[in-house]
Amino acid sequence: MLLGTGVYAQRTQDDAPLFGAEIFIEPGQTPEEIDTWFKRLQESGMQVTRVRMFEYYMHKQDGSWDYSLFDLAFKAAEKYNIKVYANIFPNNVNGGPEKFHFPSTNKHLDDIADYIKHCVEHFRGYKSLYGWVPMNEPGATALTAEPFTVSKFSEWKKAQPKAAYNSSGYNSFKFEEERFLVDFDIWWLNWLTEQIKKSDAKHLIHVNNHDIFKNAAEYRFQDWRKFINSLGGSAHASWHFGYFDRQKYTFAMAANSEMLRSGAGELPWLMTEIQGGNNTYSGKYPMCPTADEVTQWLWTIQGCGAKGSIFWSLNPRGSNVEAGEWGMLNFLNQPSDRLIAASTVIKTITKDSTLFRFAKVLESGINIIYTRESMWVEDKLLNKESKIYYEGRTVGGAMKSTLSYFEALTEMGVQVNLKEIDEFDFSKDSYAGKAIILSQQVSIPSKNWPDLEKFVTKGGKLIVDGLTAYYDENAHCIMINKFPLTDLFGGQVKEFKVTGNLFPIALTNQVVLPAHLWQGTIAPTTGKVIASSANEAVGISNVFGLGHVTWIPSMVGLGSRLSGSYKQLAQFLLKETEQSLRTVPLRFTTHEAGLSMKLMKSGSSYIAIICNTNATARKLSLMKSAIITSHKVLFTNKKGSVTGDSVNINGGETIVIQFN
Amino acid sequence: MLLGTGVYAQRTQDDAPLFGAEIFIEPGQTPEEIDTWFKRLQESGMQVTRVRMFEYYMHKQDGSWDYSLFDLAFKAAEKYNIKVYANIFPNNVNGGPEKFHFPSTNKHLDDIADYIKHCVEHFRGYKSLYGWVPMNEPGATALTAEPFTVSKFSEWKKAQPKAAYNSSGYNSFKFEEERFLVDFDIWWLNWLTEQIKKSDAKHLIHVNNHDIFKNAAEYRFQDWRKFINSLGGSAHASWHFGYFDRQKYTFAMAANSEMLRSGAGELPWLMTEIQGGNNTYSGKYPMCPTADEVTQWLWTIQGCGAKGSIFWSLNPRGSNVEAGEWGMLNFLNQPSDRLIAASTVIKTITKDSTLFRFAKVLESGINIIYTRESMWVEDKLLNKESKIYYEGRTVGGAMKSTLSYFEALTEMGVQVNLKEIDEFDFSKDSYAGKAIILSQQVSIPSKNWPDLEKFVTKGGKLIVDGLTAYYDENAHCIMINKFPLTDLFGGQVKEFKVTGNLFPIALTNQVVLPAHLWQGTIAPTTGKVIASSANEAVGISNVFGLGHVTWIPSMVGLGSRLSGSYKQLAQFLLKETEQSLRTVPLRFTTHEAGLSMKLMKSGSSYIAIICNTNATARKLSLMKSAIITSHKVLFTNKKGSVTGDSVNINGGETIVIQFN
Amino acid sequence: MLLGTGVYAQRTQDDAPLFGAEIFIEPGQTPEEIDTWFKRLQESGMQVTRVRMFEYYMHKQDGSWDYSLFDLAFKAAEKYNIKVYANIFPNNVNGGPEKFHFPSTNKHLDDIADYIKHCVEHFRGYKSLYGWVPMNEPGATALTAEPFTVSKFSEWKKAQPKAAYNSSGYNSFKFEEERFLVDFDIWWLNWLTEQIKKSDAKHLIHVNNHDIFKNAAEYRFQDWRKFINSLGGSAHASWHFGYFDRQKYTFAMAANSEMLRSGAGELPWLMTEIQGGNNTYSGKYPMCPTADEVTQWLWTIQGCGAKGSIFWSLNPRGSNVEAGEWGMLNFLNQPSDRLIAASTVIKTITKDSTLFRFAKVLESGINIIYTRESMWVEDKLLNKESKIYYEGRTVGGAMKSTLSYFEALTEMGVQVNLKEIDEFDFSKDSYAGKAIILSQQVSIPSKNWPDLEKFVTKGGKLIVDGLTAYYDENAHCIMINKFPLTDLFGGQVKEFKVTGNLFPIALTNQVVLPAHLWQGTIAPTTGKVIASSANEAVGISNVFGLGHVTWIPSMVGLGSRLSGSYKQLAQFLLKETEQSLRTVPLRFTTHEAGLSMKLMKSGSSYIAIICNTNATARKLSLMKSAIITSHKVLFTNKKGSVTGDSVNINGGETIVIQFN
Repeated sequence: MLLGTGVYAQRTQDDAPLFGAEIFIEPGQTPEEIDTWFKRLQESGMQVTRVRMFEYYMHKQDGSWDYSLFDLAFKAAEKYNIKVYANIFPNNVNGGPEKFHFPSTNKHLDDIADYIKHCVEHFRGYKSLYGWVPMNEPGATALTAEPFTVSKFSEWKKAQPKAAYNSSGYNSFKFEEERFLVDFDIWWLNWLTEQIKKSDAKHLIHVNNHDIFKNAAEYRFQDWRKFINSLGGSAHASWHFGYFDRQKYTFAMAANSEMLRSGAGELPWLMTEIQGGNNTYSGKYPMCPTADEVTQWLWTIQGCGAKGSIFWSLNPRGSNVEAGEWGMLNFLNQPSDRLIAASTVIKTITKDSTLFRFAKVLESGINIIYTRESMWVEDKLLNKESKIYYEGRTVGGAMKSTLSYFEALTEMGVQVNLKEIDEFDFSKDSYAGKAIILSQQVSIPSKNWPDLEKFVTKGGKLIVDGLTAYYDENAHCIMINKFPLTDLFGGQVKEFKVTGNLFPIALTNQVVLPAHLWQGTIAPTTGKVIASSANEAVGISNVFGLGHVTWIPSMVGLGSRLSGSYKQLAQFLLKETEQSLRTVPLRFTTHEAGLSMKLMKSGSSYIAIICNTNATARKLSLMKSAIITSHKVLFTNKKGSVTGDSVNINGGETIVIQFN
Repeated sequence: MLLGTGVYAQRTQDDAPLFGAEIFIEPGQTPEEIDTWFKRLQESGMQVTRVRMFEYYMHKQDGSWDYSLFDLAFKAAEKYNIKVYANIFPNNVNGGPEKFHFPSTNKHLDDIADYIKHCVEHFRGYKSLYGWVPMNEPGATALTAEPFTVSKFSEWKKAQPKAAYNSSGYNSFKFEEERFLVDFDIWWLNWLTEQIKKSDAKHLIHVNNHDIFKNAAEYRFQDWRKFINSLGGSAHASWHFGYFDRQKYTFAMAANSEMLRSGAGELPWLMTEIQGGNNTYSGKYPMCPTADEVTQWLWTIQGCGAKGSIFWSLNPRGSNVEAGEWGMLNFLNQPSDRLIAASTVIKTITKDSTLFRFAKVLESGINIIYTRESMWVEDKLLNKESKIYYEGRTVGGAMKSTLSYFEALTEMGVQVNLKEIDEFDFSKDSYAGKAIILSQQVSIPSKNWPDLEKFVTKGGKLIVDGLTAYYDENAHCIMINKFPLTDLFGGQVKEFKVTGNLFPIALTNQVVLPAHLWQGTIAPTTGKVIASSANEAVGISNVFGLGHVTWIPSMVGLGSRLSGSYKQLAQFLLKETEQSLRTVPLRFTTHEAGLSMKLMKSGSSYIAIICNTNATARKLSLMKSAIITSHKVLFTNKKGSVTGDSVNINGGETIVIQFN
Repeated sequence: MLLGTGVYAQRTQDDAPLFGAEIFIEPGQTPEEIDTWFKRLQESGMQVTRVRMFEYYMHKQDGSWDYSLFDLAFKAAEKYNIKVYANIFPNNVNGGPEKFHFPSTNKHLDDIADYIKHCVEHFRGYKSLYGWVPMNEPGATALTAEPFTVSKFSEWKKAQPKAAYNSSGYNSFKFEEERFLVDFDIWWLNWLTEQIKKSDAKHLIHVNNHDIFKNAAEYRFQDWRKFINSLGGSAHASWHFGYFDRQKYTFAMAANSEMLRSGAGELPWLMTEIQGGNNTYSGKYPMCPTADEVTQWLWTIQGCGAKGSIFWSLNPRGSNVEAGEWGMLNFLNQPSDRLIAASTVIKTITKDSTLFRFAKVLESGINIIYTRESMWVEDKLLNKESKIYYEGRTVGGAMKSTLSYFEALTEMGVQVNLKEIDEFDFSKDSYAGKAIILSQQVSIPSKNWPDLEKFVTKGGKLIVDGLTAYYDENAHCIMINKFPLTDLFGGQVKEFKVTGNLFPIALTNQVVLPAHLWQGTIAPTTGKVIASSANEAVGISNVFGLGHVTWIPSMVGLGSRLSGSYKQLAQFLLKETEQSLRTVPLRFTTHEAGLSMKLMKSGSSYIAIICNTNATARKLSLMKSAIITSHKVLFTNKKGSVTGDSVNINGGETIVIQFN
């Protein structure tokens, strides 16, 4: 659906990408300032903004409504041809503007419905209205004792069917709080959406999750898809990238993007919030993004198939937490170096609008899979008095393991999916050329055991490390006595032992992987030993149906990450994923530390987005399939060059190349 | 008013200094012990003590009063000609002797009044009574939910007028808790004083604050002056000097002293508690002061214009927290090396009583200014989940910045005032030769903007660093859009960016200042660029009226402190404060790391107190004005010597010189 | 009492040692699995197990009882001739199986009694029943506000007599919570035992404390002895050995054992829980014991006079916390290397059953003594805001000091008792050849002052360091004014001063001891100076009656520990304990870092158990008395050898030698 010049309502993955920055509207601002900010968006080539529609600033003490402050914004948006994502922002139960996760009481719920009705009915007529964001950053991380929550939880418990699977009769944890929270988020987002739709059935619905590396345990995106038009996310370096060093923030952005892409399924997705400016007192890890980082982030998000990106924020808010922080405009309302850099990227993409509109991620067939249950089990079983001696033995061990394979494959120039296990389609007829990696996924729910067997039986490659499948969904240890995945894995773990922060796993094929913390020893059944230690098998390889499993029950992913180099892990993966890699038309010839490549296909063209996160220049060689004959450089920002298969890329540079 | 031999009631700054140590009185002590302690005071040349008048040990379970334990003390005081500061110490709401900050209930308030009446009426007749301390160490740091506090807060809120200034209509923080706490302390101290005065209108009233580098945000001394006769403070190294390394404790004592001197205004002030002995389990940073430290502290306090010093404590208390700790007497009731050292200093000062009685701090005209609001804003805006990556981005950043300039100027041998902004007199006709330094004072209240303009217009020099004036008193960011101090500062900040723990600010005059954390870039209006970085102005100099502003919006004070050397900052200050320095008759010729000089004037004499906090001997040269022709060494404790302009001072030594 | 083949009810120290591992019984397990586990015990030469008798798995929702799961275990035990320690495990007040410390309510207490009656009456008839454990791991560490606790505390307070000693009338802490907790544990264990005995007066009662280095403050074992038949303990490296580096875990096990031996008095004791396998998410310090460690632990426990050892656990539990952890069997129910190693030790001991059954610890006459009150005082007086700058100034300083002497003497190859002060028999007629060490025992209760005087008067040697006797039992400082132990110690401390993390105490006999934190200076009365610093006495030696006191009021024990070497401390102790050492028939010729020796006597034989905790081989020389002429090696596990007085012992090895 075309909305004014060049702006489409994003309902499919074929819609054009949109770019923007949030304009923070609050009383105290002048009409001139608001006008200026929309003007700046337009000048930067941006098409969209996002505005927090604070009830607090519309709903007067006497009960009357005054929308004038926000009317200014919607009118300025019209004037400069900017579309607005209006973010529903009801008062909390105390009548204040501060964020809350769930309604506190039934009365509060009614008040919220009333606010939504007023707000939506007033603004639905604006041509500048693009869509609604029912809630900013759902993700409560824990239940509270508020009456509404308590009552909903009680209802929920009553409605739960008896579980078909009962951990063989063991008295196990039930993870009710965790499972309820997932459902409660969905119920709440859906309820909010319903209130909006009562007054405006037409405009788009968009929701942005946040802090995905920690909050993923709370999100079941498949159910979100039922009421949203596009999925979004907040990916703020200074809040959310604590699992990464700053040099790897581009990788963090890529991983975040792949998780959103997977969550969105067939829906379009966009990055709803990207850090636009400096922190003073807010955020956890203070920083100001550089122009180079902003460039890499925008291109990386694009390369992961996003339909756009919105920065937080254009203007720094004036008061309250974050006052004077996060802005892409400086205090004089001039574009910062970050905004100028973003604008250059945006204009490059807009110029080639057909190329980018139809560009799709070219999947490698490799999938790294995580489970929500692994994150729950880590949190439940970890003794909280324990000091952090080992990264693997703490909340985050499973996610960091997952990220390690993502980083290694990214440094090979290979795309890789990053999926919650239920986001993967286990219903296909063949998985030839497909691979799944399960790294330190300590809990594999019983419902997925047959899925994994089907995947391998039908030709898939399964790569497993660490304590993966130690527990079922109830934190029951399934490795004791009769391990239900013995046939699939080709053996059974005898024991895990704390072995050290880093210790070697020497494969028979000469590769030596750095492993972390626990070493598992295996009693093979059908599996062939591929690694031994002190006369015990510590890695095996098993043929199962048409497929194949490689199992190293030690944390070689996280071990590689902690060792500071993915060189060995990449060597290992090159061989283990060779069936998938054969289908990939373009990748790095060798492992390239600190470099990433995102690959898209648009019509008959391939688009390769290469980022150098290192401070120094690199020369790298591309391995191309024969079908690729010519190239054209679409973007460089540091004078990098491409000659034949060779790419010279400077420190911090991004190069985008179109191949035919 | 002369009280017995050589002891004056301190009502003006012309009264003689008094020295002493607290005698801790508690049941279990024998009359002989109590007698011995007062005797020890006299032998040490001390004239005063302070006693906690525990209601708990006077007011019996049956409601009767038994003052006999404390009568012993007052009688021994008479015998040895010692004056007693009696410290009001009512029972807490549970009837226990432990300290509390505010009454818990109205009943508790009535009980306190009753106790004060009994206590004051009983002891007011003793000749040895010197004055009353209504409360030890006010400073609650946070509000509680106790009924009396809740009710007072509610009253207070109702009585608050609408603020004249509203952050241009922005919805900002109000800092009500913080502002109420300041008022509540004043109300409470005044109420206590009134109860005392009902029964004894004659004797002195003295109050000691504590932990001033953290608690300054809670004290408005101008209002205390209305009911006290002298201001005091507790300055315990092992509790309060955590912002300093041990080597710099003498500097900490000097900074603490200057803050008290400023707080006292025209009233006399004294250091009410100085650590006298060793910590075992109490305190935060365990230590035992050395004789050298005690000597430096006493002289430094004296050099900051105090009318005396009282150690905590003469005798270690026998029971409860602090049992066996803090004493200047050892367990055999013999003087420790610390008491012997203190006695030597005291006798030196007493010997020259006229000289020291009328000695006044010779101000340099330089004033470092802090604001309570900066401390409030740091605490309110800082994300508490944030790890401490950077010292400047935490509670204490503003105060440590302030202390950095204090330390640098002290190492130049230059006196400097340390004032809360409202303690500075902005009503003068001329500020020629005067300088104000604002370092990382993130909040400058709107009421002070015209003050600063007046100061510069009338010839003052203003030196500004860091995020000073980022916020108004409501934590609203005033640097966005139209910065209200643009005319004064000669420009506006474009952005602050996290730049690193330490980075250089290269001035056009060759000085390279180490800066910390955020770098601010400037869009100059009338200001002349004095430092650039990557083609951006990062420091400017502005003429405004008859005065001048130097503005470097990066933390060069704290940066210098973190770098471990004030050499460059001193170089910078030498030039920036030259108008002031021209008025100073005596200072170090060059920056001298670890050395301090306090300068007083008494009649036509100058008294220079030089401390070497280094472990090793130093030779330094004094820059003297021509009017000084002769000198006399009043005190050395390590055989240091003075020859012409040259001073040889040994490690840890203190030298006091009289110049004429 | 003989119970089946070779198994005796342990009622005296002459009963045979028993070995085993806990079998964790829970629903979900199959009869075959349970059978296998008992079979594995038998195959390993084990005679005993311990089973948690969860009410939760017996007492159905409808109120009925179903014991069938546990019947399976008792029947399998009969089949394989294994004896069962049945561990009473009632539901908590919420009806859940999780552990609790005390009953919550009177109703809860009644429910517990009812469960015990049902459980005991059902199982008392099994021949495989060996005894009852009324509660696992008593030791609550703090009081709760639960109704039953509150009511008991209130009763207790009313019943307390007025203390005979009142700290000379000082207003001191009373430590009521701490003292009540000790009594409450005793009351509760006794009550549980009474309930068991109502239904089964015949079988043994055994209780295992835990985390003894921290919980010792809560245990008064003398009163436990009144109702138990044997004392036990849990000594899990990954939970309880945080005061030690991993290399010193064998020393930790020895210290734990000596504390239990002392606690047991004339009763037999055994180690009820020893870590058997790997941690994943439970425990504080993750590890998997090695076969070498298991060997050293078993022999060391044996060498400290235990009547056996039980591992936690044979089989890893399947669900809940600890799922899949701690097992000595691997996941295939095969013996791990740890079980194989344990089995070898057990079979060695069983083979020589008469030798080991009657083997008794050969005491050296040296006793390290701690007081519960020292641990209470540390916890009460330490300012909790204090950062840990110094190990000695924190909770644990007293215990670590105690352990330092234990380690030093152990490295000399010398046995040493480790006793709570009231466990020592002060009623003997002579203490010639006996020594007591008091290291940093900050509180010595007044009742023990005459005990210490009697000990020395009658010929004992007393060695005292640190702040020992700084406080009485009320945390009143007894060193001020008139120190009650002046006559005994031969002087009085003048002061303690924070002096540094490590500083030297140079003795007149050339030994230089590393000391920690505080240095005490002494005013000697009858004592002879043995160490001086800056013209002050810092160590003295005093003759008192027939005995002798050596007093260094600085932390030389903990200082040596922190310095990383006991070489100097061993030199010091060699001389100070020479009267005791003369009675010892066998020890190391010199101090041997990382080596330990436990010495037993059985009939006319001596058994020496030597462990090398170093990674590398050592050659050591034994100093033997003339009465020893021949030796026989009973056990080696790394090919070590003994030739004459010379022992070659490999890294991690254990050698057991019989001398005649």
